Amino acid sequence: MRVIVINTGTEILLGDVVNTHLTFIAREIFPLGLRVERQVSVPDGTAIGDALSENLDRVEIIFVTGGLGPTTDDITREITAELLGLELVRDPVLEEIITERLRTRGIRLTDRILRQAMVPRGAQVLPNDHGSAPGLYLAADLNPANSSPHLFLLPGPPRELEPMFLQSVQPILERVVKREEPIVYRNYRIVGMGESYVEEAVGRQLLAIAGLELGYCARMGEVDLRVIGSSTMLEEADAIVQAKLAKFIFSTQRDNLETVVVRQLAARKATLAVAESCTGGFLAHRLTNVPGASEVFLSGYITYSNEAKTAALGVPAALIAQHGAVSEPVARAMAEGAREKAGASFALATTGIAGPGGGTPEKPVGTAYVALAGGGETIVRHLFFPTDRETFKQLATQMSLNLLRERMGG
Amino acid sequence: MRVIVINTGTEILLGDVVNTHLTFIAREIFPLGLRVERQVSVPDGTAIGDALSENLDRVEIIFVTGGLGPTTDDITREITAELLGLELVRDPVLEEIITERLRTRGIRLTDRILRQAMVPRGAQVLPNDHGSAPGLYLAADLNPANSSPHLFLLPGPPRELEPMFLQSVQPILERVVKREEPIVYRNYRIVGMGESYVEEAVGRQLLAIAGLELGYCARMGEVDLRVIGSSTMLEEADAIVQAKLAKFIFSTQRDNLETVVVRQLAARKATLAVAESCTGGFLAHRLTNVPGASEVFLSGYITYSNEAKTAALGVPAALIAQHGAVSEPVARAMAEGAREKAGASFALATTGIAGPGGGTPEKPVGTAYVALAGGGETIVRHLFFPTDRETFKQLATQMSLNLLRERMGG
Repeated sequence: MRVIVINTGTEILLGDVVNTHLTFIAREIFPLGLRVERQVSVPDGTAIGDALSENLDRVEIIFVTGGLGPTTDDITREITAELLGLELVRDPVLEEIITERLRTRGIRLTDRILRQAMVPRGAQVLPNDHGSAPGLYLAADLNPANSSPHLFLLPGPPRELEPMFLQSVQPILERVVKREEPIVYRNYRIVGMGESYVEEAVGRQLLAIAGLELGYCARMGEVDLRVIGSSTMLEEADAIVQAKLAKFIFSTQRDNLETVVVRQLAARKATLAVAESCTGGFLAHRLTNVPGASEVFLSGYITYSNEAKTAALGVPAALIAQHGAVSEPVARAMAEGAREKAGASFALATTGIAGPGGGTPEKPVGTAYVALAGGGETIVRHLFFPTDRETFKQLATQMSLNLLRERMGG
Repeated sequence: MRVIVINTGTEILLGDVVNTHLTFIAREIFPLGLRVERQVSVPDGTAIGDALSENLDRVEIIFVTGGLGPTTDDITREITAELLGLELVRDPVLEEIITERLRTRGIRLTDRILRQAMVPRGAQVLPNDHGSAPGLYLAADLNPANSSPHLFLLPGPPRELEPMFLQSVQPILERVVKREEPIVYRNYRIVGMGESYVEEAVGRQLLAIAGLELGYCARMGEVDLRVIGSSTMLEEADAIVQAKLAKFIFSTQRDNLETVVVRQLAARKATLAVAESCTGGFLAHRLTNVPGASEVFLSGYITYSNEAKTAALGVPAALIAQHGAVSEPVARAMAEGAREKAGASFALATTGIAGPGGGTPEKPVGTAYVALAGGGETIVRHLFFPTDRETFKQLATQMSLNLLRERMGG
């Protein structure tokens, strides 16, 4: 089945936001054997009509993102109904949901907002748990007078689209896509090893499995290794991957590293504190994004200034004066101080130079130390990530979390 | 002049990389009055031919990215030459540059690599300082027998394309674009008011300005209002927008809220501490993402447990017992405690129930209090964001930062 993604949004074409929908949708439909054959971005307004009509009889599935909101430039719903010759009718259930949603938030209901309860006759409503604009699914040939592909109209904001896709779109796609043999798919999430090393370790052996499809995807501080094929192929692949990479694999599900670490801590009934300098709260943020983090995470100390390191963590001022705030002894003292102050089983600490300012010839921008105190010892690692500020924070927190994951033997 | 961007690359359509070329190109050409009217992504291989021929007589400028490399699926150069009826000729200067580049890197020269020295007759070579594939510029109607737009063929990797664009493409565009009146553009970034209220406040009046283009873009806890037109139109629009929305506008540039707040603090030589419960470090993370944050940000206390609130911030245990950790008095005590412990001019505090667990009938998931201490008083606001955990954190930090922004009068 041929698939097209149409993204609407003037902000995309003006360069104000990066379009991440294609990446998300392409990855999600991949295990169903679906590939995006083309992607088109058009501005808000009437251009969506051209992009749709050009493709209506060319493909079997179209995903449209954006243009479902309450403002006048949001016309995806109206244009689609018009192109397919479908009447727009008010959906009373949807109207009730939208009204209730606004009421609990104390937001006044307006006619514009209520436009979002209009539905092309026969379309299936895809609930939006994170916003007021629902998604819509128009089955192929919904209006028998006009041949049309399966059409999914999805909201523009990723935090609305992504959960809606997983909850409502995937089950419909599974019905729509008729496959002979189920394609299976496994995704190994790897930390502590770069993409080309992963390929070097297992690539040749995996390519020798006839019919197995193989993909690598490098993200900041982690690599996904994706294998797709029959279940026999996957078993064979799994033996190869586990033999070479077991200790670098932190998940074969979709879990992120912080979720794995929180789960490890909870299983041991252990607790954690963090002391952050260069990562500036990002380590705590990642950990507290995990539902249930409050069971294991006690407290965090973001000690940006030297005075704060001394006052909050008891790092001796003389130690900082002697070695500098970015040093092995200070990272160690920060982790040990945080563990003691918080009364936690473990504590992680970070200190480094995120840049763009603050580097010296001996300690250039990108230098960092991460430390883990707990279980009778303190481990410190020296890192060097000469990159932009946010990437630096991502990589330093990734290495900290991995230090703890390894320590707990997972 | 109408502009189209065509991105080739199977990795884009598989979701393995996020396409950032559109964002980059759109921003760079904007000051020249050029806007991208459509963007298309197609896989490597022959699909580039379809995408090109569909658009050759529809627009005045086409940017193509990708498909200039040495592998068999890199055929942008060949397909373009064929479509325009131009012979491919070997460029001796280019051949020399490529040969030399490989020699210094100790890479063996192959016929495939030398294909990159082939140039459609009459095309201008755009040097690539960061890779072996040069870019190409084909002026409009280069082959008088075939009418064609200005065509720029650019390499796929952003670290090759971006410097090439700035060095070689921009000067050509400046020659090519003949403008009568410069198009201007303003983006108002708004916090503390929802998208539909923004439209209600100014939409009708702005639509009355003939020729003015108007756009809204809602992000989590903020709205962009975009106006595009002549400078006379923009002046008229600005008067309307400022009259109705001035106190909600935090930037008319591209700055985010945390950057504005850090700048306000620096201008007053003021310092900041944060005490976070429900936002779990995200507030500190956002602030420390701003380069130079260390000038104003002293320290953060992530007091997830009640004990931590007492130990790190001096919140009386009895106060927590009486009102609960999520309460107006505890938010107030956290902010005041953080300000005092850190010796900061201001302190922000957050306490709330991010969910999914932890809600009660009196204090349901989504309840939060944010407090600001400093300047002789402490302000506390009660919030309610019943949503997912990460959105909750985003909205609560947004409201905290806005509290501080308003307090500093900007």
